[in-house]
This record gives sequence, structure tokens and C-alpha cells, in this order.
Amino acid sequence: MRDKLSQEDIEKSLNDLQGWELVEGRSAITKTFEFKNFIECFGWMSRVALISEKMDHHPEWLNIYKTVDVTLSTHSADGLTALDFKLAQKMEQQLL
Amino acid sequence: MRDKLSQEDIEKSLNDLQGWELVEGRSAITKTFEFKNFIECFGWMSRVALISEKMDHHPEWLNIYKTVDVTLSTHSADGLTALDFKLAQKMEQQLL
Repeated sequence: MRDKLSQEDIEKSLNDLQGWELVEGRSAITKTFEFKNFIECFGWMSRVALISEKMDHHPEWLNIYKTVDVTLSTHSADGLTALDFKLAQKMEQQLL
Repeated sequence: MRDKLSQEDIEKSLNDLQGWELVEGRSAITKTFEFKNFIECFGWMSRVALISEKMDHHPEWLNIYKTVDVTLSTHSADGLTALDFKLAQKMEQQLL
């Protein structure tokens, strides 16, 4: 799970996700989530936080009111791993 | 609370805070908070989120693992108001 993915694996994994894209100049994926209000937004962040802690894999995320810009990458691998795509999938599942 | 503060009021309010500074090129204040781990970090964010929602005044914050870069400004006033300094004080009070 913590091994760096090949370019081919990254493209395949990206295709399984909706709205995620590669970050320019960095081996990372990103998506902006928008919610109805702060309660919906931070509710989602709280669910994702619990999952992240359990996975021992955490997002970089910028929250401004009802939007969250998420960036995922695996620091220890200095790039994208299966963990990033697993966390991205779980973030999608937590949208109500 | 939602009126734009004078430069003099901003400086006075900043002096009452520890470690906060003005953002270059924008009427906003910022501070980086660092915690022991993600649990401590997101625990603090959760307490601050409840307070923010109650105040109807929300931070811009970037969380990367155990650090949070916070920026406060009042969008509706296009600058700093007493609300920003009140929220900054409350953030400090929520440090355990």
C-alpha cells in the first residue's frame, strides 16, 4: 500500500475516481469539494478525519467556509501510493 | 463586531495576541498552530469549528497532519473586524 505507483497505475486509479486530477509539478492528486454550508462541510471533514487516523494516512486540506481543497500524496514514499487512492475513494463514500 | 477596524485598533488587538501576525498584501491575520499528533490537532479543530459555527464566523485553515495554518478576515467587511480577534482569542483558549 505504501509503495510508489507507476505512471500506468496512477492513470488507471485516477480513471476510477470522479473529479480528481494530478497536481502540476508534484506527485499528488487533488479535488475541491463544495458543500451546502459549514455544518455539512465540517461534518464530512470529521468523518474523513476519523477514517484518516484509522488508516494512518492523512490529507492536506484547506477549508474555507463550505469548500475543502484536498491534496493527497504519500510523504514517506515521496509520491502517490495505493493509500492515496484508497483515501480518495473513502472521501467520496462519505459524501451524503 | 462586523465593522472594519482602524489600523490603530488592529495593532492594539494584535498586541493582545501571542504569535499572530498580519498577512502581507491582505487585511487578515495568520498563525500556524502545531500539535503533538493528528488526534490533538483535529480535536482542537473540532472545538474551534463548533465555536465558529456558533459565532457565524469561520476561519480559512490549512491542515497538514499535525499543523494548521489559520487565516482570519471578515469577508463581508472586506477586512479585519472585532470578530476576527474574538475568534483568534477563542482559538487560543481551546489549546489544551
